[in-house]
Amino acid sequence: MNVDLIVIGNELLNGKIKDENTHFLAKFLHKQGHNLRAVHIIQDEYIDLEMTLNSIKAETDFIITTGGLGPTEDDNTKNFLAQFFRLSQDFNQEALEIVKAQYLEKGKTYSEDDHNYHIIPEGFTVVKNPIGYAPCLYTKINDLQILSAPGVPSEFKGVLQSLANSSFSTGTKKVKHHIFKTYRLPEAKIFKSMEPKLWEKLSQFGEVSSLPHKLGVDIGIKLTAETDQEILEKKEALNTIMQDTTLKDFIWHIGPESLEEVIIEKAKEKGLTIGFSESCTGGLLAHRLTNVSGSSSVFWGSIVSYANEVKMGCLQVEKDTLKNHGAVSEQTAFEMAIGARKNLGVDIAISTTGIAGPLGGSPEKPVGTVGIGSSTKEITESEILHFQGDRDQLKYAFSQAALYKLLDIIIKHPGK
Amino acid sequence: MNVDLIVIGNELLNGKIKDENTHFLAKFLHKQGHNLRAVHIIQDEYIDLEMTLNSIKAETDFIITTGGLGPTEDDNTKNFLAQFFRLSQDFNQEALEIVKAQYLEKGKTYSEDDHNYHIIPEGFTVVKNPIGYAPCLYTKINDLQILSAPGVPSEFKGVLQSLANSSFSTGTKKVKHHIFKTYRLPEAKIFKSMEPKLWEKLSQFGEVSSLPHKLGVDIGIKLTAETDQEILEKKEALNTIMQDTTLKDFIWHIGPESLEEVIIEKAKEKGLTIGFSESCTGGLLAHRLTNVSGSSSVFWGSIVSYANEVKMGCLQVEKDTLKNHGAVSEQTAFEMAIGARKNLGVDIAISTTGIAGPLGGSPEKPVGTVGIGSSTKEITESEILHFQGDRDQLKYAFSQAALYKLLDIIIKHPGK
Repeated sequence: MNVDLIVIGNELLNGKIKDENTHFLAKFLHKQGHNLRAVHIIQDEYIDLEMTLNSIKAETDFIITTGGLGPTEDDNTKNFLAQFFRLSQDFNQEALEIVKAQYLEKGKTYSEDDHNYHIIPEGFTVVKNPIGYAPCLYTKINDLQILSAPGVPSEFKGVLQSLANSSFSTGTKKVKHHIFKTYRLPEAKIFKSMEPKLWEKLSQFGEVSSLPHKLGVDIGIKLTAETDQEILEKKEALNTIMQDTTLKDFIWHIGPESLEEVIIEKAKEKGLTIGFSESCTGGLLAHRLTNVSGSSSVFWGSIVSYANEVKMGCLQVEKDTLKNHGAVSEQTAFEMAIGARKNLGVDIAISTTGIAGPLGGSPEKPVGTVGIGSSTKEITESEILHFQGDRDQLKYAFSQAALYKLLDIIIKHPGK
Repeated sequence: MNVDLIVIGNELLNGKIKDENTHFLAKFLHKQGHNLRAVHIIQDEYIDLEMTLNSIKAETDFIITTGGLGPTEDDNTKNFLAQFFRLSQDFNQEALEIVKAQYLEKGKTYSEDDHNYHIIPEGFTVVKNPIGYAPCLYTKINDLQILSAPGVPSEFKGVLQSLANSSFSTGTKKVKHHIFKTYRLPEAKIFKSMEPKLWEKLSQFGEVSSLPHKLGVDIGIKLTAETDQEILEKKEALNTIMQDTTLKDFIWHIGPESLEEVIIEKAKEKGLTIGFSESCTGGLLAHRLTNVSGSSSVFWGSIVSYANEVKMGCLQVEKDTLKNHGAVSEQTAFEMAIGARKNLGVDIAISTTGIAGPLGGSPEKPVGTVGIGSSTKEITESEILHFQGDRDQLKYAFSQAALYKLLDIIIKHPGK
């Protein structure tokens, strides 16, 4: 099924908020075996919706709109849809019952005087909003399905999940993505100088995509088959091809799992506990690991030491080290890693201390300089690396380098 | 100037990556006084680009494409644009010089045999990519400007910033958004029961928008004027209107600044230092504050204590407290706040301990339960709150509640 998403909202186009719904819907549909054909982010004006609907209605099977369903005067989606399809809007008893029940579940009473959620375009039905108050609208006109959903991300997620087994029920054909995750090589080097024939070889199995990340490239192949067995055979053949390339030592994972998930899984297998001391990453390392459910079985904690006082007080970094080498140095990273391992009582600690900018750089230590340390019972090490970008990008790059370092240590660790 | 963005990339539509460029471009254009008319996220196929270009080319002044400029075989944007506008592609000496210089700056040598960046559609010019290797393309066909930019966010940002003073030079009319940031009230309550006439009153000054966030609503009014003085007068009149409403005690800030920025600014004014102890927010509080440049002047650190061992070892939470009340309790939050204040040596500490799920809930303490503590030299407090959502949403909601608490404390604090 081809799905088009129309995101209605001036706030997205003038930069006040970030669109979160596209990414969620993309993942949701991909998992269900459907195709997100295109996304259209448009302003809150009838003419924009009209032009978009006209240009896509013959190209897609299912149109989802988000936004403009709430109680305020810039919430016009229902009226716009009625206008476009030339439908009158009427009192609808069934809608009233659903909205009343939805309010009741949240301990509130729906008032017909305050809201018009029960007055809907003819042919539409109301779909319960499990999280918020404004209900959704759904209809099928000829072969085109239309769902008008709320724009608030938690509500949008809730509505889609409630429809997963009805409107978005799955087909029978198997579609799987086989992903080789590589690190420390630029995209151009992989496909131009290292393995110029690789793209062609992989393409025999399905559509190939190359996705560059900070410090890594994911190479994906879309596999289609009638049976799970056939998918498995294709995956094994692909793995054999990759094992024969010069890329093989740069593949840190085969599969869709994230770096954080792989770290937690591998640490769990070996019974290792993990901690951080973070200066320049400012909590991002801990935040990234704790975004994974189940991280608590291996991740114990992080000492975010933005101030030198905290580096000395909570991590026992020597005053002389800070004075002689500076907070951003191999030496400080080294002592921070030991301090984190001992104070948190973990098997492996990683430290970061760097300059995320835009201020604080110098000719010797420009913005983008980072010291990364690691400490286990056996060995403590640290090194200085350099990156480019703005503050957000640098925090992320620093965290990525630190997590790759952590993964390497876990892989080499004999376990407990 | 009306600008349309076309984001080309299957990876966005199948959920492998999140689109970061739309939000950056929206903020960039808004600041420059331009209008992002619409965004189109499409698949990497000629037919999709063709249909999109046909539907928008008469509606907009400037089309930006992102993606598909790199060195791999799924990078087709240049060819697609040439096909659409029926342009031949030729060797271009000027392009070659620019690309060579761009490579040289990064310490590399451009090879004409490996790449075809210097072979471009007729009438196009090459624009330097300050961050990556694939250069951009620019042209003006009749009155329509077209920029083909890279999809990697850091490269996209770099290219836009380099064009800020040429292609995107500003006009003369002043456009400003005046924003009232409120908290702890749902959107419907504000505009329906508390202040039913407010929307209409504000609309006399310009387009009104209402933007619900987690635990708050931003009310914005778009002001247009010929002079700065006129803008200032309108802002003052709006402030007077809001001061006369029942909303006034729920406005925590007037202006576009984020919660994190307001916290840092106000703490700086009073000379206060800030620290956290985080269990369920797992570093997110520290990450959010350290995203702000200059945060190091007030933010000293955070002890992320995911494991009970760290709560006891680094924060001196009593073993009996954890045993008798559990890690998620008012008592633990209370002791964590004191521990953070003392160990980090800060004036104000905030603690979080809760259940972000999806596992770990119980009938007494369901997923979404959080204990939030605060400690200053004068007073330590803690409370239990409840939220709904998935893991990401809950971590964010917990952090939002904690930061609002922190803001309240800073506002009431007499300073040092």
